[in-house]
This record gives sequence, C-alpha cells and structure tokens, in this order.
Amino acid sequence: MKLATIALDGAAVPALVRDGAVLPFASLAPDLPASIEALLAGGDEAMARVRRAADRAGQGIALADARLLAPLTRPSKLLGIGFNYSSHVEEVRAKGIPIPDLSNQIWFNKQVSAIAGPFDPIHLPASSEQLDYECELGIVIGRRCRHVVAADARKVIAGYLVANDVSVRDWQLKAPTATLGKSFDTHAPIGPWITTADEVATPDDLAIRTLVDGTVVQDGRTSELVNGIDAMVAYLTQVMTLEPGDILLTGTPSGVAAGRNPPTWLREGQVVRVEIEGLGHIENRVVAEPLDQTSFIR
Amino acid sequence: MKLATIALDGAAVPALVRDGAVLPFASLAPDLPASIEALLAGGDEAMARVRRAADRAGQGIALADARLLAPLTRPSKLLGIGFNYSSHVEEVRAKGIPIPDLSNQIWFNKQVSAIAGPFDPIHLPASSEQLDYECELGIVIGRRCRHVVAADARKVIAGYLVANDVSVRDWQLKAPTATLGKSFDTHAPIGPWITTADEVATPDDLAIRTLVDGTVVQDGRTSELVNGIDAMVAYLTQVMTLEPGDILLTGTPSGVAAGRNPPTWLREGQVVRVEIEGLGHIENRVVAEPLDQTSFIR
Repeated sequence: MKLATIALDGAAVPALVRDGAVLPFASLAPDLPASIEALLAGGDEAMARVRRAADRAGQGIALADARLLAPLTRPSKLLGIGFNYSSHVEEVRAKGIPIPDLSNQIWFNKQVSAIAGPFDPIHLPASSEQLDYECELGIVIGRRCRHVVAADARKVIAGYLVANDVSVRDWQLKAPTATLGKSFDTHAPIGPWITTADEVATPDDLAIRTLVDGTVVQDGRTSELVNGIDAMVAYLTQVMTLEPGDILLTGTPSGVAAGRNPPTWLREGQVVRVEIEGLGHIENRVVAEPLDQTSFIR
Repeated sequence: MKLATIALDGAAVPALVRDGAVLPFASLAPDLPASIEALLAGGDEAMARVRRAADRAGQGIALADARLLAPLTRPSKLLGIGFNYSSHVEEVRAKGIPIPDLSNQIWFNKQVSAIAGPFDPIHLPASSEQLDYECELGIVIGRRCRHVVAADARKVIAGYLVANDVSVRDWQLKAPTATLGKSFDTHAPIGPWITTADEVATPDDLAIRTLVDGTVVQDGRTSELVNGIDAMVAYLTQVMTLEPGDILLTGTPSGVAAGRNPPTWLREGQVVRVEIEGLGHIENRVVAEPLDQTSFIR
C-alpha cells in the first residue's frame, strides 16, 4: 500500500494512494485510524483493517487534485546517518573536511519541527547562503523494538519514503554535532507517501537521484550504502528503542552542492526534485525564509 | 506552580505539588488538561485555569505516597548543549579530548525515548562500562516561537526542571555528533516536576550539584553558564521553531566521572542524585541493562 496524508476540508487526513487516485481512510470504513501515526502505532492489526477496507474501495479523489502533506509530522525520532555512500565520503574528503572514523556509524538528528510536505517550499535561511540538498531513502519503523539482530531488521520496518536531507553547510560545520545545520524549519521534506515494505522488493537496490531545475545532480543506487538497512537497525537498537513512526534517513550519494567547485548552493526560485525508483518523488521550491511569518511568539 | 505527572490507578496523570501534597488535576476541576503536554500546548489560558482550580483545592495525596513520573514523556525536542560551563571545558581539555570552536553553541540531541522518571532506574549498558552523570538545569518551552531575540527569551519559557544528562562516554566519542552516547534508553531522567518560571526568581543563579552514593561529585551554580538562558533561546530559534514542551538541557559543571584520574564510572547499584536549588531533586539507581526486557520486537 501507499500511505499518504492529504489536506481535506482544512484537515490533515490519512489516505491510500492507488491507481492514480487518493482514497481517504474515512471513505473506506468508519473505524480506521485517524492518522498514519495511529495506523503505525496500531501495528499489524490496524494495517490489516486498512488492507481489508482497501479491497472494497471505490474511486476516490484524482491524485492530481489532492494536496499531499508529509505522511508523518511528529515521529518521536528523525535520525540521519552521515558518510553512508563512498562516493559522498570522497567528495567531502576532497574539500578538506575531516572524515570521522567510519568503522562507527555516524548518526545525527534532524528536529521533527523541520518536517515539510513533499511539495512544500523549503527555506533559504536569512542567516546563510550555503543551502544544499541530499537525496535519501527513508526507513519508517513499524514496531517498537530494541536489540534487533540484523537478520530480524526487516520485521520492524513498516515501509519506505523519499526524503531530502536539506542541509545548511556553514551551520553544519559550526559544531561537530551537525545538529543545527540539519534542523532548519522546512529542511526535512518527506513523502510523497509511505510505500509499505511488502511492495518494495529490493530496498537495497533502488535508483535514487536529485534534479535541480530539471538537471540531474545526484544519481546513485541504494546498493551503494556503506552500512546497509539491516546493519543500521541493528546498530541503533544496541542503544535505543525504536518506535512506530520513527524515521531513519540512510545517507546520500555524491553530487551535493558543497562537493562542487565552486559550490552550486541552492538559490531562491530553484526547484529540487528527489526521486527513488518505485517510491515516487518529492519536489520542493526554494523560497526566502519568510521572516514576517517566522519571527513570532505565540 | 509545581507541575508533575504521577502514577494513579495504573495511568499517568497530571498533578500539582503543593505543601507536601500532590493534587491530581482531575481532583481539582473536571475540565483541566489531561497531561502536562496538553497543559503547555494550551498556553496561558490553560495555565490560568489550573491556577484558578488550585486556589480552591483540597488536601490531595501525601507527596511521600505518590509515584512521580517524568513530567513530560514525549516532547518534540530534547536538546542538550555541550561545553557550557568553563570548569567542565577545562576538565575535558585536560583529558586530551579536542574542544570544538566555542564561539558557536554546540547543540546535540538526546532521543525522547531516553526520558525516564525522576526516581526510575538508569541502565548500565551491556555494551559499555563508561557510564557517566551530568547534572543539568532543564528549560521547558511554553510557547511556539521562532527568531526570538534574547530580550524576549523569558516570554517563551514555561518553567524549569532538574535533569541528569546521563552519558556513555565511549559511545559518545565514536562519532563527533555524540548522538548515540547521549541516547541510551533511561539516560534522560527528568523531574521531579516542572517549576513554573514565575516561581524561579533567579534561574541564572541556582546551586546545582550531583551526589553519588551521598558524596558530592559536582557542585556548581547556573551563574557559570557560558551561554546563558536568553542567549541559548535566541541562538536556537535562529534555526528552528521551538514548541511547547520542548526541553533544553543547559550543560554541566566539572566533576563528571570521565574527568577524574582514573575515571570513576558509575557502577551497578550506585545511586545518583541531582539537586537544583528551588527545583527539587531526582535520584536514580544504576541497574544492569535488563536484556531480557529490552531485546524485543513488538
């Protein structure tokens, strides 16, 4: 299944995407979860109820007419791994930036407040010109788990999505933690939906690329991951409990703006598109940070 | 007010703490928020309703009989700042660990899944012996805000709490991001309650200390903060929207186990107590990571 969240009558509602149509859960059956978060928290039983309802489903809304939102807006974790494609490690090294010990997995957080919809604008910060893109495969966790061995990792994955790990490079380098440079508002566009794991036969070998204004700038395959999907789940769960809805971003191949000479930072008005084979695409326009809307206390 | 969450009839319920008694919200008035998260999200209006109800309140439960839980369990952010007391910077430097450029604020994340109650056990990980403590003043955000100038920072703070930024030093040093070493389950005990800002006259000058088995091991004052409360809120909100319930941990003074020769890592059975003047204390026993309970998929 393709699990989306759409805008409907001013609310964010969960929906299935199928055959070019969007089917809000509420139109399928009266007792389905009220959000994708609730669906994932409901585990196999909730997922089975949605599947059964989908089998009886009618026509729905044309996909072209629906406004897709981020499928999840408040996971308990939004983690990213750095240096997880060799081609990207090499382009970073070539810029003279120190590479940490890659016998460990290098995990950082994006704040969940950075999550944006698959077709929402992304902000060029007032405080930086070094706006960059990173196409990434996102893993969505489906079960609460800890100390998962690699051989069991697929059991805890609900599905996959497309993400852009938008990064502000000067802020990222201000602190070794990278936390702030990864966490500007709007800098985690995700979507266009969650494709459930049963429909992704080879998550370890999908074409992934980024286009800026239609020009391909990153072009890789998830088969290049240094730490694969199973290894990432096993490593993280040595430390922490993963919970339904948690999102893991799995790194980016070479071709980022910072890796070029001179760097080709994203500019206002440009459109960044990230595509992953079988998972769809997200597409976000760069806009100046709207200071009149973002300076607030309320 | 002192805002707590307590265990009552198997549920976690919000309560006021006053004069040695705990008053569940439900015993004060029928229409009060069902959690501290909901109270904070409700802003000034919700807070005023609780205050009015408190004025009419009766006796409540004896504090000694109540089981206090973490006042908040799922904020959207749990951020910590590193190197924010000069005395701690010096003890880290003396160990030969590289210090980043401290003209920037060094922020990292703890996962919210690490949050534990004020008197809950904390885990000695199976994968490390380097378990350490860090007494910290926690700031609880009360308003959604962005681009807050330092002079306005106090307007967005709901209150303060006591925290132990429990850290696993070898894991912390495996990656410059520090994410995993700060994020083991149970390694963010907080509490014992949120003291609202109106009752904390001088958050910038409070005694703060840690005791291990009754021996004082850290002893400082929040007046030593390198980046003060207002500067932290201003810096973070250049980047991100802060939301009600978000928790900011403000750094630790010298005296951590890692700073000693040889290091005095926490051991199974030891009791770590963190106290902050006027905010109360939390006290957590070190237990071996219960692998039979933490290896799971569900």
